[in-house]
Amino acid sequence: MISNVRLDRLPRTVELVRASDGAATLAYVDQRLLPSDLRIERTRDWRAVVEAIQTLAVRGAPAIGVAGAAAVALWAQEAAAVAGTDGSFQDALETTAQTVAGARPTAVNLRWAVERVRDEAASALETGTSPGAVAEALFEAVKRMEVDDEAANRAIGANGASLLKPGSRILTHCNAGSLATAFYGTALGVVYAAAEQGKVERVYADETRPVGQGARLTSWELARAGVPCTLICDNMAASLMARGKVDAVVVGADRIAANGDTANKIGTYGVAVLARHHGIPFYVAAPTSTIDPAVADGSGIPIEERSAAEVLPRSIEGVDVWNPAFDVTPAALITRIVTEQGVFEPGNLLY
Amino acid sequence: MISNVRLDRLPRTVELVRASDGAATLAYVDQRLLPSDLRIERTRDWRAVVEAIQTLAVRGAPAIGVAGAAAVALWAQEAAAVAGTDGSFQDALETTAQTVAGARPTAVNLRWAVERVRDEAASALETGTSPGAVAEALFEAVKRMEVDDEAANRAIGANGASLLKPGSRILTHCNAGSLATAFYGTALGVVYAAAEQGKVERVYADETRPVGQGARLTSWELARAGVPCTLICDNMAASLMARGKVDAVVVGADRIAANGDTANKIGTYGVAVLARHHGIPFYVAAPTSTIDPAVADGSGIPIEERSAAEVLPRSIEGVDVWNPAFDVTPAALITRIVTEQGVFEPGNLLY
Repeated sequence: MISNVRLDRLPRTVELVRASDGAATLAYVDQRLLPSDLRIERTRDWRAVVEAIQTLAVRGAPAIGVAGAAAVALWAQEAAAVAGTDGSFQDALETTAQTVAGARPTAVNLRWAVERVRDEAASALETGTSPGAVAEALFEAVKRMEVDDEAANRAIGANGASLLKPGSRILTHCNAGSLATAFYGTALGVVYAAAEQGKVERVYADETRPVGQGARLTSWELARAGVPCTLICDNMAASLMARGKVDAVVVGADRIAANGDTANKIGTYGVAVLARHHGIPFYVAAPTSTIDPAVADGSGIPIEERSAAEVLPRSIEGVDVWNPAFDVTPAALITRIVTEQGVFEPGNLLY
Repeated sequence: MISNVRLDRLPRTVELVRASDGAATLAYVDQRLLPSDLRIERTRDWRAVVEAIQTLAVRGAPAIGVAGAAAVALWAQEAAAVAGTDGSFQDALETTAQTVAGARPTAVNLRWAVERVRDEAASALETGTSPGAVAEALFEAVKRMEVDDEAANRAIGANGASLLKPGSRILTHCNAGSLATAFYGTALGVVYAAAEQGKVERVYADETRPVGQGARLTSWELARAGVPCTLICDNMAASLMARGKVDAVVVGADRIAANGDTANKIGTYGVAVLARHHGIPFYVAAPTSTIDPAVADGSGIPIEERSAAEVLPRSIEGVDVWNPAFDVTPAALITRIVTEQGVFEPGNLLY
C-alpha cells in the first residue's frame, strides 16, 4: 500500500490568533455546519467560546480543552483592559475559570486545561505581574497548549500504529479525529500514523447518534485526508464484526479513571462488548490529560445528559427520551490504552 | 399495576375491504408518514401494493405477508375482468406471484403468504373455477389470513407474557408491533399481553436507524396504546443494560432458519450480544410462518442491502456507506422463540 494521506487538507480545529489590531482571537471550525460547510468562526468574546463548547460547535475532549483555555485567555484580555489594582481581576479569574470549566461536565481535559492557565495566571498575579502582562502570558500558554496537543497526538499516533497490522480494517466510534483536537487527532491520529505506514485498508465509522459525529465529522475528515472510509449506522457494527471485517477498534476518551475505566461518547461501551464477543482488540487513544487520577473508577465520572430534541426533534406525545452523551467502558474490556507516553494495560496506567 | 392498555386506539395496518362499488381494495397505513400523520391509503392496484412494500410504506414481516397476498388478490380481480379462457390468467398468476414475493428478499412471510394464495388460486383453476370466482376466493383467503394473523399474534402474546415477571422493563428493537402485522403485533403483542396482566413497567424502544422504526413507529404505537415508553438511540442500549434497567429483550423476526438462527432488523444481533453479556434473557416472538425449514441456518438467509441515502441523505465525497437492512442472530444467543404454538428453545423449533 502506498500512503496517500493528505493531512494538509485538514483545518486547524481551534487556534488562538492575533487579529489585525493585535487582539487575541479564537479561530475555530463550527463543527455543526460540517460536512456541508467548512466555516472558520472568529471571536474575541470568551462567552461566545463557552457557548460554542456547550452547543457542540467545538467538541472533542482535547479541542474543548484548548478552547476552554483560550476562553480564559480572551477573558483576561478583556478584563485587563479595564482592570484596576483592587484585586478584582484575580477574583474574576477564578469565577471565569469555573464557568468555563463547567461548560461541559464529562471530559476532564476541559477542566485540566482551564486549571492550567488559571494557575499560571494566578501565579503571575501573585508575583506582581500586571493583568495586561498576564493576558499576554495566557496567549502564549494557549499557543503552547496547541503545539503540545498536536505533538501528543502525533506521539499517540506513532504508539498506536505499532499495534496495528498491515491491511488493518479499523472501526471507530464518534470523532476522535483532528476535529476533536487542535490538530491530528487521537483515535484518528492512530489511523493517520498507521495509514502513513501503509497499514490501513479501511476505516469503518459508526455514525454516532444522536449528534452524528461519525456521519458528519469522522467520515468527512477521513475522506478529505484520503483514508478509505465506510460509514455505518451504530447498530451495524455487530454485523460487520460477525462478517470478519474488523481487525481492531480504536476510539478516543473523554475521561479515564485511575483504574482504566473510560468514559467516551455514548455507544463506545457497546462497541467494546461487541469487540470482546468477537475477539477483536479494543484500543483507547487519548493524551494523559484525559486521565483523572482523582476518580478511582468509572462510577465516579459524571455523565452528561442532553436534551430529548437531539434524539427526537419533534416530540411524540407520551414518549420519553433518554439521552446520555457518554458511557463508561470498564477497563476489563479495553485491550490497551495508548497515550503520548506509550501503550499501557488499562490497569497499569498510573504506574 | 392496573392495566390501561388501549388497543382500540391502534389502526388496522393492512386490511382488504370492499369499496362502495364492490371492488376489493387494500386499506393500509402509510407508515412513512408516522408519527406525524396517521393516514390510511386505499388502492385496488396490485402494483401500488408492491411499491408500498418496497418503499416501506407497508413494512413488518407479517404485515407484508398479508399485503403481498392482498396484492395477488387485487391482481386476480383486475385480470379476471379481462380474462379469456386461453390459460393466460393462470400463466400471469405465476408471474405476478413471483413479482410480489420478490418485492423484498429477507422476510419469508411474504413468500409464504403469496405462495399460499397462489396455490389456492392454481388449485381452483385446475378444477375449472372461473377467474372471477378465483378472485372472489382470494379475497376471502386474504380476509382469513388477516384473522389468522391477529389470532396468532394474540397467542404469541399470551405465550410470551408467561415468560415475563411483574414490573418488567422490556427493551425492543425495530417495530414488531401492531404496525408490523395485521393487528396486535408479535414482540409488542407480548408487551400488550403482559401489560394487560399489569406486568410491564416500561418499554425501551431502540430508535432503529436508519429507517427509524423504533423512533417513529414503536414509540408512537406504545404511547397511543398507553404503554409507558422511553426512546433511546441504538447505541444507548448497552448503557441501559449496564445500569440494570432492562429485564428482558423481546424482538420480532423476518426469517427463522431451521436451526433457530434468526434474521431480524439490523441491530438485533448486537442487542443479543449485549443481552448475553449482561445476563438478560433475549426472546424472539414470531408466527410459525416466519420459520423457513428450507434454510438450515442463518448463513442461508439473504440479507437485503438498501440505498446509501437511507443512512446519509446527502452523500459526502469519498465516503462509502454500508446499509444492510437485516442481520442474523445465532440461535445460541436466543433464550426462547415464542410462536403461536408455544415457547421453544431455538434448537428445538421444528420438533
